Amino acid sequence: MYDLIIVGGGVSAFAAALFAGRRGLTTLVIAKDIGGQANFTDLIENYPGVKSIGGYELVSKIRKQAEEYEVEVLSAEVGSLKSANKAFVLTAYGKQYKTQTVVLAFGKTPRDLSVPGEEEFKGRGVSYCANCDAPLFKNKAVTVAGVGDLNLEACLLSARFAKKVYVLSKTDKLTGHPALLKAVKTKQNIELIPFVQILEIQGREKLEALRLQDLKTGKEKELKTDGLFVELGYVVKSQFLTGLLQLDKEGQIVVNQDQSTSVAGIFAAGDCTNRPYKQAVISAGEGAAAGMAAYDWLMRKQGGRGLTSDWTEIKRVKS
Amino acid sequence: MYDLIIVGGGVSAFAAALFAGRRGLTTLVIAKDIGGQANFTDLIENYPGVKSIGGYELVSKIRKQAEEYEVEVLSAEVGSLKSANKAFVLTAYGKQYKTQTVVLAFGKTPRDLSVPGEEEFKGRGVSYCANCDAPLFKNKAVTVAGVGDLNLEACLLSARFAKKVYVLSKTDKLTGHPALLKAVKTKQNIELIPFVQILEIQGREKLEALRLQDLKTGKEKELKTDGLFVELGYVVKSQFLTGLLQLDKEGQIVVNQDQSTSVAGIFAAGDCTNRPYKQAVISAGEGAAAGMAAYDWLMRKQGGRGLTSDWTEIKRVKS
Repeated sequence: MYDLIIVGGGVSAFAAALFAGRRGLTTLVIAKDIGGQANFTDLIENYPGVKSIGGYELVSKIRKQAEEYEVEVLSAEVGSLKSANKAFVLTAYGKQYKTQTVVLAFGKTPRDLSVPGEEEFKGRGVSYCANCDAPLFKNKAVTVAGVGDLNLEACLLSARFAKKVYVLSKTDKLTGHPALLKAVKTKQNIELIPFVQILEIQGREKLEALRLQDLKTGKEKELKTDGLFVELGYVVKSQFLTGLLQLDKEGQIVVNQDQSTSVAGIFAAGDCTNRPYKQAVISAGEGAAAGMAAYDWLMRKQGGRGLTSDWTEIKRVKS
Repeated sequence: MYDLIIVGGGVSAFAAALFAGRRGLTTLVIAKDIGGQANFTDLIENYPGVKSIGGYELVSKIRKQAEEYEVEVLSAEVGSLKSANKAFVLTAYGKQYKTQTVVLAFGKTPRDLSVPGEEEFKGRGVSYCANCDAPLFKNKAVTVAGVGDLNLEACLLSARFAKKVYVLSKTDKLTGHPALLKAVKTKQNIELIPFVQILEIQGREKLEALRLQDLKTGKEKELKTDGLFVELGYVVKSQFLTGLLQLDKEGQIVVNQDQSTSVAGIFAAGDCTNRPYKQAVISAGEGAAAGMAAYDWLMRKQGGRGLTSDWTEIKRVKS
């Protein structure tokens, strides 16, 4: 039986581990991937106190800090979480793990296009992270299909490497931050393909072309491309929590001021919560608070004083 | 007219400045002291991503990051904040500053004993930060008057430098974390003085003695001491906001999920909010979110799209 199991492998998960570990909680981190969203970021330049750092490097540093307090890390994907006999049971790859408290910090996952061929060519031309993979398409032709600023940023970064960048739009324009739009217009190798949607992703060994539909005429056409960046934002994969905890309509975990969820003993932090702004340092702060809140809750459960004098004052969502 | 004025000079204030500055808001930071609570911390070892850093050094680094985006910093104390004609007016040392949005990030202030002589001997033997000043009392006799873990930590740190550490209690025991209590008991040079309270702080040029009252007999006695650490926790000095914003019973500013307060256009972050756990990284995360929220609010006010799709979904406290 652990004091705390943390689900996730990014900034918020390891920040929670650091704060719980420092307080002596026996802590297990179950991570599907180490790095989380930070992996999708080449260079973080807005983490207060750190001038500039790679996303993976930041997570590795926090993990190292946490591991100084004997935090364990397991590479596995959590399949279920259940409340059982005043404790919690998680399953991962068929094994069961028991714990007194849980911090959910599993972040977000890129949204799919949901078209034929997408699954087949993932990692073979289809990427969900221009920030990570743009340099792989040096002097090639790539296509960007996305929304808002993510879309524009993917175009700009791709244009630094690729010979040609096609950007698809269902209308005849792009949307996003004016400064980004302006920058996109100045790039000679970015070409807008208006009024289209992707019907299928095609190729042999790897992605070779997209079958597009012209939304004005209904006609189909083929676009030859070596790469496709899907930049549709992110979803919270919280289906395994349905019926256990309160989620919002986007599947984000509803949290209180103290990172507690609608189930006593379960906390959440980072991109998987319903806090509106998503940034590395915000995740770190939420993770730290969740680690402290788990400790606090456990101390009170054991009859101790806890960390905050006004704990009972916190407004909470109902189960 | 600024886009944003930030009140405070600590981690949360400069994190907010960094995130607002990066988004191009014209930003002024009005700080009474540079450093905030972080100044009271010798070494921060739980800031995720940074192995170990001095409190002042951390704040200086964040300030430097923010100043790369033309954020201005003014050393002054804000006397009032008023809503005026769809904007806000702050006064500091008799001058007025106009702004479209405000982030309140002025942290907490150490709580006083409120006894005669305290004001007189502040900085001349009376300190509110054992973490900062314990090394000044090498081989001397110091007294600690405080509560909980803060009290115990002040005793332990003082005991490393002082010849003798007196710790005062209104009962016959100390309270706090079991590990800290155990550590205090093992120190030969820490002596508990039970059932007492301080009546007066005495001295000539500097602190020389405390006049104590025995709570069992009512009798008075004198305790010779070179230093006094007052460790009673912190208060939020938010009196200047009374009637403008919703405060909790401790004077903390009530914030929503997005760091907004009960007044549209005013945000708050860090130790002055009603979020329950107070740590450097939590302040940094809240500051970042407040900076983004101020930008977001301003964009929407100007008819733009804003940063979050679910902005209207955020549950807010009422004015």
